[in-house]
Amino acid sequence: MLYEQIRQEAYESNMQLPRLGLVLFTFGNVSSVDRTRGVFAIKPSGVPYDKLTPESMVIVDFDGKVVDGSLRPSSDTKTHAVLYRHWTSLGGIVHTHSVYATAWAQALRDIPIFGTTHADHNTVDIPCAPPMPDEMIKGNYEYETGFQIINCFKERSLDYREVEMMLVGNHAPFTWGKTADKAVYNSAVLEQVAQMAMYTEQINPSAPRLKEALVRKHFERKHGPDSYYGQ
Amino acid sequence: MLYEQIRQEAYESNMQLPRLGLVLFTFGNVSSVDRTRGVFAIKPSGVPYDKLTPESMVIVDFDGKVVDGSLRPSSDTKTHAVLYRHWTSLGGIVHTHSVYATAWAQALRDIPIFGTTHADHNTVDIPCAPPMPDEMIKGNYEYETGFQIINCFKERSLDYREVEMMLVGNHAPFTWGKTADKAVYNSAVLEQVAQMAMYTEQINPSAPRLKEALVRKHFERKHGPDSYYGQ
Amino acid sequence: MLYEQIRQEAYESNMQLPRLGLVLFTFGNVSSVDRTRGVFAIKPSGVPYDKLTPESMVIVDFDGKVVDGSLRPSSDTKTHAVLYRHWTSLGGIVHTHSVYATAWAQALRDIPIFGTTHADHNTVDIPCAPPMPDEMIKGNYEYETGFQIINCFKERSLDYREVEMMLVGNHAPFTWGKTADKAVYNSAVLEQVAQMAMYTEQINPSAPRLKEALVRKHFERKHGPDSYYGQ
Amino acid sequence: MLYEQIRQEAYESNMQLPRLGLVLFTFGNVSSVDRTRGVFAIKPSGVPYDKLTPESMVIVDFDGKVVDGSLRPSSDTKTHAVLYRHWTSLGGIVHTHSVYATAWAQALRDIPIFGTTHADHNTVDIPCAPPMPDEMIKGNYEYETGFQIINCFKERSLDYREVEMMLVGNHAPFTWGKTADKAVYNSAVLEQVAQMAMYTEQINPSAPRLKEALVRKHFERKHGPDSYYGQ
Repeated sequence: MLYEQIRQEAYESNMQLPRLGLVLFTFGNVSSVDRTRGVFAIKPSGVPYDKLTPESMVIVDFDGKVVDGSLRPSSDTKTHAVLYRHWTSLGGIVHTHSVYATAWAQALRDIPIFGTTHADHNTVDIPCAPPMPDEMIKGNYEYETGFQIINCFKERSLDYREVEMMLVGNHAPFTWGKTADKAVYNSAVLEQVAQMAMYTEQINPSAPRLKEALVRKHFERKHGPDSYYGQ
Repeated sequence: MLYEQIRQEAYESNMQLPRLGLVLFTFGNVSSVDRTRGVFAIKPSGVPYDKLTPESMVIVDFDGKVVDGSLRPSSDTKTHAVLYRHWTSLGGIVHTHSVYATAWAQALRDIPIFGTTHADHNTVDIPCAPPMPDEMIKGNYEYETGFQIINCFKERSLDYREVEMMLVGNHAPFTWGKTADKAVYNSAVLEQVAQMAMYTEQINPSAPRLKEALVRKHFERKHGPDSYYGQ
Repeated sequence: MLYEQIRQEAYESNMQLPRLGLVLFTFGNVSSVDRTRGVFAIKPSGVPYDKLTPESMVIVDFDGKVVDGSLRPSSDTKTHAVLYRHWTSLGGIVHTHSVYATAWAQALRDIPIFGTTHADHNTVDIPCAPPMPDEMIKGNYEYETGFQIINCFKERSLDYREVEMMLVGNHAPFTWGKTADKAVYNSAVLEQVAQMAMYTEQINPSAPRLKEALVRKHFERKHGPDSYYGQ
Repeated sequence: MLYEQIRQEAYESNMQLPRLGLVLFTFGNVSSVDRTRGVFAIKPSGVPYDKLTPESMVIVDFDGKVVDGSLRPSSDTKTHAVLYRHWTSLGGIVHTHSVYATAWAQALRDIPIFGTTHADHNTVDIPCAPPMPDEMIKGNYEYETGFQIINCFKERSLDYREVEMMLVGNHAPFTWGKTADKAVYNSAVLEQVAQMAMYTEQINPSAPRLKEALVRKHFERKHGPDSYYGQ
């Protein structure tokens, strides 16, 4: 009963990934946090989506230790744990290997901001963190992946509350948000922005970045005190 | 009861967008006009398609002011209002961020007329309006977007009754027609033409534009006094 | 009752086109021939696939004249009529604007034979007929399209019984076969071969054509006296 | 009754191919082996997936001779037979013409290891076997295809128990595994890796191969004594 709500949220959000075409087999995971108890619910490792139930979600603390649940949690659990500990207003995290976003991550490139679809959600290029040094890979890899993400944001002076998506170079995308549901939404947006940006460069290899006035306008339509999008 | 018909038309046309694969989440909107009353029905802002009902469509006048309905109208409402006011035989308008058309808009390029699929619907390259000046963006943005579209047609001496689709540079496509249903049809056609044109250039970077005799022949098969397509 | 069988065949074959993802809206048509009566059944013009019935198929003779049926036949009817008259063992014809095949047609290029998927069905590059001279376009256009196809085969010394698919330059693909069903099968094969060939060149711009020994081997596995594919 | 289990396995695995989008019409086949009896069950040749039943699977020995079943086995049967005879711990084999993997095969290129999606399954580039000499093609073609695969692995010192997928140049992919089900899984993974690699090069033509530390880390997460993926 204690963890029923985050289990339900994590379950429902995980189930959205195949419906949105963001995962093949088990290549993705969503978690949902309970800040008062200092734990999050996450997908069990390697279990197909059609076998998931709310009960099968694993409860883990911010050190990545299992608190409740009979299955092993996602192999990416420590990355989630690090992000929840350090980014204290996160409500949910998503990791996928969605095709277009992963291609940009493999290409080791930021996704340039080319249009208003992008600017409706972010004012900057989607950052791609550089591959981590070999010592970190050989060490506590998933734990270090969390810091790879956090350090990338620090170095670029980005705020995780404003930019809710990024690419881990050579690997794949991570997204987050105030809720697990919003984090899934961001995963789908990122995938579409990644696809459009690839096509944009194919159609015009010297396509310019969106100009600053449009970046600001579109972001402020959806975010901040003067937003007028939605109900 | 007063607005029942346009609400129903706007609802049904909006519901076609996800079915045709033209929108992710809420990234699109359709409106349908009632010329005798000087109002149109448009999708409420940010409401998911599976939550829409005919009743939820918002009734707006040609100044963009809400006349009836409890929800906030689409954030693009003023663009629709400007187009209805100035282009007096429009019956419906569609705005989407469909992937291929948006990529051309982000690439800031007209879509070249490469074949008869395009010529069946338009005799010219699909126009891409240049980005608007910064002062206009900072001002009444959605209102100015309407004029950005109208001015692009004026400068190129195009008639909105003949060319029922275009790209707003850096942004995404707009289409229209005598009815909302026809405007949705045009959105799907534009997306397919955009996809084919991108592939055509990839297969042959020096593919020529369609020759004039074929442009005319195909357009006249479907349009004008000697058309012989359809029933 | 007289035309029941070809109406049924034409109906069922037409209905396969949207299921196979080969048409948007009404952009395609299939016909099925009755050689003893010298007529064929073809899709009515501009009627959506979900409104079709076997009874709605129009019966036309080899001059393109309607013999039976209350609707106007496909605008491409005369092309079908010419092909049936001149290629006397055809049983069915398909015309679509499927995306990848149409992109090659717009690029005015033959589809190179790059692999065994192609060789399982054809021993040659898929031919792309050059655009027709302006006088022919202004004249009896759909009728001349039939001769454009036939002349392309003559000039290249191809036999329509061996090569059952081609591209009409600037326009889109035509396929055919001993039955309407086989012609539809060929349309889907052509679309997949077109897609694979585009990707092959993108992955390796100097990819070689399939060597002759493999061309022959794969074609003979499926065709001719020593074939051993199928039941 | 004797072959009931492998017939059922082969049937279920074959039925997954269209569901995973890996085959058009009958362009693919799966087999499942019974090592104690020295036979395998394989798809009958040219039979559409929706007509398959467990009973229709053909039982064949390691010489490629039919042992049980009323239909002719897949035309690729001898390739399966050679692989089962020589690679003695194989449980299942899959052959498809899936679009992206086939494009790489037609391009005659190995698929470079660009990211962790690839490294989760293989530590090397996916090998593409060179086209076979003409004498072998004219001889016992499908039988020689088996040796083309085995020789490619020998020359590169690869172990089929570690690398469970490859491309036959000019032709298409083959995958395998301890079970038919695992072999199908590998086919879907290969197709996605092929798609991502093509996009990666399009986004960054000088994208580097994944560095060795990440290759090892990701493979060992899923494989070997210290693996910690799955339940």
